[in-house]
Amino acid sequence: MIKIIVGTNRKNSVSEQISLQYQQLLEQMKVASELIYLSELPDDFVFTALYENNGKNHAYNKVHEQVKSGTKYVFVVPEYNGSYPGILKSFIDGMTYPNSFRHKKCALVGISSGVGGGSIAMSHLTDVFHYLGMHVLAFKPRLAKIEENMSGNLLTNRLYLDLLREQAELLVSF
Amino acid sequence: MIKIIVGTNRKNSVSEQISLQYQQLLEQMKVASELIYLSELPDDFVFTALYENNGKNHAYNKVHEQVKSGTKYVFVVPEYNGSYPGILKSFIDGMTYPNSFRHKKCALVGISSGVGGGSIAMSHLTDVFHYLGMHVLAFKPRLAKIEENMSGNLLTNRLYLDLLREQAELLVSF
Amino acid sequence: MIKIIVGTNRKNSVSEQISLQYQQLLEQMKVASELIYLSELPDDFVFTALYENNGKNHAYNKVHEQVKSGTKYVFVVPEYNGSYPGILKSFIDGMTYPNSFRHKKCALVGISSGVGGGSIAMSHLTDVFHYLGMHVLAFKPRLAKIEENMSGNLLTNRLYLDLLREQAELLVSF
Amino acid sequence: MIKIIVGTNRKNSVSEQISLQYQQLLEQMKVASELIYLSELPDDFVFTALYENNGKNHAYNKVHEQVKSGTKYVFVVPEYNGSYPGILKSFIDGMTYPNSFRHKKCALVGISSGVGGGSIAMSHLTDVFHYLGMHVLAFKPRLAKIEENMSGNLLTNRLYLDLLREQAELLVSF
Repeated sequence: MIKIIVGTNRKNSVSEQISLQYQQLLEQMKVASELIYLSELPDDFVFTALYENNGKNHAYNKVHEQVKSGTKYVFVVPEYNGSYPGILKSFIDGMTYPNSFRHKKCALVGISSGVGGGSIAMSHLTDVFHYLGMHVLAFKPRLAKIEENMSGNLLTNRLYLDLLREQAELLVSF
Repeated sequence: MIKIIVGTNRKNSVSEQISLQYQQLLEQMKVASELIYLSELPDDFVFTALYENNGKNHAYNKVHEQVKSGTKYVFVVPEYNGSYPGILKSFIDGMTYPNSFRHKKCALVGISSGVGGGSIAMSHLTDVFHYLGMHVLAFKPRLAKIEENMSGNLLTNRLYLDLLREQAELLVSF
Repeated sequence: MIKIIVGTNRKNSVSEQISLQYQQLLEQMKVASELIYLSELPDDFVFTALYENNGKNHAYNKVHEQVKSGTKYVFVVPEYNGSYPGILKSFIDGMTYPNSFRHKKCALVGISSGVGGGSIAMSHLTDVFHYLGMHVLAFKPRLAKIEENMSGNLLTNRLYLDLLREQAELLVSF
Repeated sequence: MIKIIVGTNRKNSVSEQISLQYQQLLEQMKVASELIYLSELPDDFVFTALYENNGKNHAYNKVHEQVKSGTKYVFVVPEYNGSYPGILKSFIDGMTYPNSFRHKKCALVGISSGVGGGSIAMSHLTDVFHYLGMHVLAFKPRLAKIEENMSGNLLTNRLYLDLLREQAELLVSF
């Protein structure tokens, strides 16, 4: 069961759409997966689930348990202000010790409106995950100028879809 | 008026204490400064001040205005999970366009319980600030093993204090 | 006198061409500049100018003196294998102590054949320069797909030329 | 056969000594390994084995073949000027296409005289290897203040030795 984490809490995000398409790619490969939404975190978790409240917020814990039970992850990461969304890091900052990612494996997908494709965001996130002891698949597709490569809510750029498929196959055998 | 930003919302944080001592160093140099607390952000700002709510949360805006009115900043940045605190990035993710840091200047102070001194955290933050067009002072003290270098709530390591003083002088003339 | 460093020793490099055009932009602003070529380093400098030979290789020292006498720099940095060229770092590894960049200022220009524009290369180089105490201009143009944006040996993409001009102006007043 | 790459060409380097001790740890685990020395590269390879000379320098090719024939690597990486040694990147810049590291696996060991332990150097190198499609073990020991933790030519700090042993075991099963 691969956990696909939508890397933002923005409503109706492109990241969610890409995550859904990623799930379909995995389905075609007969691999089960589940989406995890940061938008389901309690609104105030940054103040009620960290530090002295670590582990005490039930609504946070619910999402955290979903994450914790996985062994392989896909993180769909939109570029915000030149890096990953703050909420994704805050979610990680709320995890209890020993951390939930140690010795596990993940794949990163970068998304941007601009030309960067989230390469710096993925570099930063790799540092964080390596710090936590989680392996990161070397192959990290950068989906730049994402809006120009979608039709309605669907990613239509064939190269991008091929990159995601290639990554999904690598993740399954990682 | 230099704005000193306490880089976490943790209560009674070491970062707050270091920020207060930084302010004293500036006072000794006859330079005015003001502390800005991320802990004063509204608890739910990650859900109520970003994206479609950008600029609409009055309590967020209050802290944002404090930041926006500055031209020089000190960021006191504790290392959480190998990078900067997520809340600091979420605060930035809520800033309105054009961003409040463009063409301004800042200094970074890294803090860690472990031996790293927040060097990776400051590298990541530098990427974000450069993306936003804010200059970052090259000299970035790394206050490692911070607990061992404090006495009560006071930083007592003389080398660390000298580093902060040197940085403060560089920032004033930056 | 701004020193423009061609960030590779590749013959007839695009980086050299961009450096020459950068010099012209500075000329139009009545600002003197000089190109420095890593290709003029002695072929074996990585083995004869570093460590126990530090400061002893006259041909290396000649280029080093050219660099050392400057106070402001432009580094034109092509992306090789996802980062800056190794030779640029080896040149830095040969500098004598105290390093030649401390308290000086520089601007970075990233170049790539692919879509990245050297953003990771410039992030890495920023870390190195900050370590050495040199300030780095926040504004770092990324000239992606460079071959498609040149006509013969000339950069013709107007946006790219505007970015370089904007950066040159910022560097002069930095 | 694990290839252990001494990440510098400095003579009698600490990195070489650590590499030899790493080999002994692997021997104790009945795992064969081989040291590869960048110091055996031809002195002028940065000028005679890259770009238009790519693949044409026999002495470079000899070292390159040693590397290419491996599938798992340990890189012992001393921190020079806040990042990895330039020569290591230049060696990579001379590799022929398709690159020799794609879909392979490596472990990184950071070494520093100062307190950093090469964390930024390893972050940069991870970016490069991920760009090239090589997986990097998440666990990256940082051997800070290395001189204080050696006795003669031998690493004697037990914690450091345990970290290397733990990494070696992880690499074998990676």
